[in-house]
Amino acid sequence: MLDVPTLVEQARQGRPRAVARLISLVEGASPQLREVMATLAPFTGGAYVVGLTGSPGVGKSTSTSALVSAYRRAGKRVGVLAVDPSSPFSGGALLGDRVRMSEHAADPGVYIRSMATRGHLGGLAWAAPQAIRVLDAAGCEVILVETVGVGQSEVEIAAQADTSVVLLAPGMGDGIQAAKAGILEIGDVYVVNKADRDGADATARELNHMLGLGESRAPGDWRPPIVKTVAARGEGIDEVLEALEKHHAWMAEHGVLADRRRRRAAQEVEHIAVTALRERIGDLHGDRRLDALAERIVGGTLDPYTAADELVAGLTDGR
Amino acid sequence: MLDVPTLVEQARQGRPRAVARLISLVEGASPQLREVMATLAPFTGGAYVVGLTGSPGVGKSTSTSALVSAYRRAGKRVGVLAVDPSSPFSGGALLGDRVRMSEHAADPGVYIRSMATRGHLGGLAWAAPQAIRVLDAAGCEVILVETVGVGQSEVEIAAQADTSVVLLAPGMGDGIQAAKAGILEIGDVYVVNKADRDGADATARELNHMLGLGESRAPGDWRPPIVKTVAARGEGIDEVLEALEKHHAWMAEHGVLADRRRRRAAQEVEHIAVTALRERIGDLHGDRRLDALAERIVGGTLDPYTAADELVAGLTDGR
Repeated sequence: MLDVPTLVEQARQGRPRAVARLISLVEGASPQLREVMATLAPFTGGAYVVGLTGSPGVGKSTSTSALVSAYRRAGKRVGVLAVDPSSPFSGGALLGDRVRMSEHAADPGVYIRSMATRGHLGGLAWAAPQAIRVLDAAGCEVILVETVGVGQSEVEIAAQADTSVVLLAPGMGDGIQAAKAGILEIGDVYVVNKADRDGADATARELNHMLGLGESRAPGDWRPPIVKTVAARGEGIDEVLEALEKHHAWMAEHGVLADRRRRRAAQEVEHIAVTALRERIGDLHGDRRLDALAERIVGGTLDPYTAADELVAGLTDGR
Repeated sequence: MLDVPTLVEQARQGRPRAVARLISLVEGASPQLREVMATLAPFTGGAYVVGLTGSPGVGKSTSTSALVSAYRRAGKRVGVLAVDPSSPFSGGALLGDRVRMSEHAADPGVYIRSMATRGHLGGLAWAAPQAIRVLDAAGCEVILVETVGVGQSEVEIAAQADTSVVLLAPGMGDGIQAAKAGILEIGDVYVVNKADRDGADATARELNHMLGLGESRAPGDWRPPIVKTVAARGEGIDEVLEALEKHHAWMAEHGVLADRRRRRAAQEVEHIAVTALRERIGDLHGDRRLDALAERIVGGTLDPYTAADELVAGLTDGR
């Protein structure tokens, strides 16, 4: 197997196999995970990350594919991460995504990856940022993160993006479903896809009302636009791209982009730290030290809080 | 306010106000919590803890009250902890329990307490053991822990007991509900209450079948008995008591009691330790150290894993 610096070098040259190998390394808890992340760090931060979320059936994959085409026409290198928290598959690319994305399969300027594993941090929301960093370091200028459902995990994954796109379709009662899932609060750009169907205008109006978009805002505040598309025919996709570019520029101008990224990074560090400490404690199960503490509690010579203090002290001074 | 050693001394003498005050101290995150637990420790371990769980309507409170009477007739001091994870009340005794338990209210050999608060450890399953220790130290020889519903929390609370009693009633489809909630796996003793109603035999048979009680077991294995009761008239309660005493004796004989208590103590220590570490990390939000780490990750001069290592090191060496 190639060493990590060589893999990273090859990934930066855009070699798909090196990118795939690196994502596999960061998805799992491979021994090289830390080395990969440390080696990648200097080459990250260049990509603009766009999350796409919405109920099944709204046309997320079709929209993602249409956005890839649009970004390719604009000369950008594009990464696609399709994330499915509810999938029973244990990882790797899902056939479905490959089929839907097949028009881009031969394009060396597009990298497509599906994720269905939880990752060692205990959730896809925490596995996604690692894969995003690989795509970022591999030179993707735009990374589209597509989630499959509209549950809590999807909202968390969408929150990892610089810009969140929420997709709806007419006549699906999506507004209410999306509101329930907490998705309405996270959209920076809203797309009503399948706008050639009856009820598209009603859906857009309902959304406009639910979001309170008619209300006045402070000058400089971002007012999420609602764009109507027919992604299968490419209609409205340029307008979505324009909305994304506007949001990107607005975030950069108002310091929001850096703020969001710092906040995400802080949350990620916190989660990794808690996971690491939890694992260290978990390693103690069956260990004589924890058993001995438990024995003393049962015997009444120690209370659980003092025992926990001893455990933490033992963990952290490397005993 | 009285100091902790005085409160513990008074609680050991059976003074209800001191017991109530100590439980209030351990329920919340009072500054005295650790002192209370440390002072109580030498006086704990004497009580036999029995959990009672089952769907609403099976007659849990009536059964608990009948068991209290039976234990009182046997000359035992009894503590009752009624736990309601779904209650909107913020703590203290629930009126309903007081009414149902009113016949024992004037008995100095019975201590009754309701809990509906989550406690500072983030769940009633973790608040209950602290209250149990107070009742234990206060000289209760038997502690009945009654949970209100049949959800995951109730199963976790029942798992804190030495012996778990699962209650059912005829014709409520309880078997299936209980099976769904994972309650069938935790019963050491099963009670079909309201056995004067139609379908009591069918419920007992169904239960017998679901539990595979007809199958042969290794010699020395515990075979959970199914006892039929009419708690409102006190019928079958002596048989429940007998089943509990048998299970208690069987556990003691086979080392199961000590094993269960050690395992519970180890889990509790682990939970307290993880909570403490999580709180320390949480304290860092808005702290310059976490912000500085996040800034460096966004800038590409640090990766999140190395940042987490620095955070953990900083936490644990007291910097």
